[in-house]
Amino acid sequence: MSLYTYFTPTKVVFGKGAEDQVGTLVRERGCKKVLIHYGGGSTRRSGLLDRVEKALDSAGIAHVSLGGVVPNPRLSLVYEGIRLARAEGVDLILAVGGGSVIDSAKAIGYGVAADGDVWDYYDGKRQPTACLPVGAVLTISAAGSEMSNSSVITREEDGLKRGCKSELCRPVFAVMDPELTMTLPPFQTACGCADILMHTMERYFNHGDNLALTDGIAEALMRTVLRYALVLNEQPDNYEARAEIMWAGSLSHNGLTGFGTDGGDWATHKIEHELSGMFDVAHGAGLTAVWGSWARYVCRERLDRFVQFALRVMDVEAAEDDYQTALRGIEAMEAFFRSIDMPTSLTALGVSPTDAQIKEMAEKCIQAVGGKALGVVRPLSIQDVAAIYQAAK
Amino acid sequence: MSLYTYFTPTKVVFGKGAEDQVGTLVRERGCKKVLIHYGGGSTRRSGLLDRVEKALDSAGIAHVSLGGVVPNPRLSLVYEGIRLARAEGVDLILAVGGGSVIDSAKAIGYGVAADGDVWDYYDGKRQPTACLPVGAVLTISAAGSEMSNSSVITREEDGLKRGCKSELCRPVFAVMDPELTMTLPPFQTACGCADILMHTMERYFNHGDNLALTDGIAEALMRTVLRYALVLNEQPDNYEARAEIMWAGSLSHNGLTGFGTDGGDWATHKIEHELSGMFDVAHGAGLTAVWGSWARYVCRERLDRFVQFALRVMDVEAAEDDYQTALRGIEAMEAFFRSIDMPTSLTALGVSPTDAQIKEMAEKCIQAVGGKALGVVRPLSIQDVAAIYQAAK
Repeated sequence: MSLYTYFTPTKVVFGKGAEDQVGTLVRERGCKKVLIHYGGGSTRRSGLLDRVEKALDSAGIAHVSLGGVVPNPRLSLVYEGIRLARAEGVDLILAVGGGSVIDSAKAIGYGVAADGDVWDYYDGKRQPTACLPVGAVLTISAAGSEMSNSSVITREEDGLKRGCKSELCRPVFAVMDPELTMTLPPFQTACGCADILMHTMERYFNHGDNLALTDGIAEALMRTVLRYALVLNEQPDNYEARAEIMWAGSLSHNGLTGFGTDGGDWATHKIEHELSGMFDVAHGAGLTAVWGSWARYVCRERLDRFVQFALRVMDVEAAEDDYQTALRGIEAMEAFFRSIDMPTSLTALGVSPTDAQIKEMAEKCIQAVGGKALGVVRPLSIQDVAAIYQAAK
Repeated sequence: MSLYTYFTPTKVVFGKGAEDQVGTLVRERGCKKVLIHYGGGSTRRSGLLDRVEKALDSAGIAHVSLGGVVPNPRLSLVYEGIRLARAEGVDLILAVGGGSVIDSAKAIGYGVAADGDVWDYYDGKRQPTACLPVGAVLTISAAGSEMSNSSVITREEDGLKRGCKSELCRPVFAVMDPELTMTLPPFQTACGCADILMHTMERYFNHGDNLALTDGIAEALMRTVLRYALVLNEQPDNYEARAEIMWAGSLSHNGLTGFGTDGGDWATHKIEHELSGMFDVAHGAGLTAVWGSWARYVCRERLDRFVQFALRVMDVEAAEDDYQTALRGIEAMEAFFRSIDMPTSLTALGVSPTDAQIKEMAEKCIQAVGGKALGVVRPLSIQDVAAIYQAAK
């Protein structure tokens, strides 16, 4: 094992009514004026924005706001946020929403803190050197952006979707009230659960050594999500289940479930990124549509991990040989995805890419990793990635 | 569940040779002169201090040093450290050692950052308002002080041992090289494993609701420690096992294994604190000597938790009734303690308190919690605590 750095500075306040603490949290940081960044009108209609503004007012924090973030958040709104934040002299970006809103807030934070085009950080031209503090009031359990070092932005003119990783953008605080996620439509709840599982699976399937403790934590987290996603499928307003999924979402992507590993595979995420860049599908659904095809394509290279996953997480019976056991685990996960109405093929996702489109997506995948092989379990070429898209049809 | 705050800002650098990063970590913080705080001469003889000093020199960081920390770290050395740190104008306290050294460094950090007697914070007279940054190069896996908000100091003239908790003292970084723990005597290794288990058990046995995810993580952590403590008992230089135990030690006490709970019981720790205050026994051994007696005394009040512990952590077979299953779990843990040569009675600990001494310790326990009942699983009176000491004889 080489050196592993673990850094999770985000102060989490978790529980019913946690959003009322947001003013105190901003003041603790010594900040005075925030840009409230959010998505659609439902954040206003639900009364959440009013409560957040009231909490800020009570703490003597000034605020301006900018809504309109959409899934696969757009670069143009990031530019607008940077202009607004600079004009208004805000010193903290407060994201009120899910991963898209927080990712957009991080991009605004980068853009305000340093000169030049913020897209350069996403396109890999430059590394960020500073970021305005970002805080989050989380309303969707999924992306884990509330404790993570990453954000993903889409440049709408060419559909290019790119991520940027830097310790500078980890939110300084995250307010998590599980009740805020209760009104999510079932499809979005399920997409979130899929994304949470995938963040841990991407790390779990790696090519190096693994700490037994990290494995134990990752397995406990996946079993928890499998269990409570089914509860939410039946009872969307079950507070206990909302709380389990919400905390799982944060731990899944803050580095804990990959501690001491080589970082994980991440090919499935890259493959999905190109899908949702081209077709604007929901991230979680895109992941479940391709994961099984990826897993079957690569599992022989880390049969030990896939067998362990099958037995400890999916609780399948061991088959006569390891490969069959691995396949049973993959099939059990696909069956789970379908049980919460997530697609396990591109057809079920509602997408029918042409061969030319598949070629283009596969090329973009490899381009996004600098022309190198994609993933670590089985390093993938353009042809491999295209084969996975084809198998997922 | 009421609001739960989770805050683990410590930057962890983990793996072989991690100590070479210490200069970079200090410089990243913008600090210029550190007080290196350590224990006995073995830190110098092993070459570790030289490596740390070299790493600081390479990064252009000035340093002075103060050794002599002993287990149950003493207030008089804390005072000496405060004088030295002030005279030398240091801006970071760098602990090189285990929990005692880090606890002592935290106390020095409090003392340098504000006027008045630092003991006031431990005696409960005042709350700390500031703390000089503390960094740690960990050499003993046990106390978890490298990521925790607590420290414990003993005032030697009357043997009073008191803890102080504040978010201000969480180390800003922790350097963890499992190889540094390989030369520990077997007894100290075993004491550390016991302490790590206890930090999770204190949180696991509580009186509120529990997140399934937190339970799953806590159980994975305890199973990991049970497994690798036995490996280290046979192979003290097994790197993999050292790494598992080291990371378990940090996660056991940074808040993760108590996330969403009422905070846990902590009676066993208080009962042990008075024991080691009076007899200067090793903390880990003191804990194992009394835990079984505490557990049998209180388990009927949270049979559900004790049964879950017995089945999921200790892997015992369920008995005919829950109480018997709970007892099997407690006995299995005591058998484990003995298998790593830890005592499960005061006699085995080498301590024979008189009835008067037991009364005095029991009174001090209750005094330490402000005259209220001790613990939450079954809130204990002076008489209850005395009965637990008697049962542990």
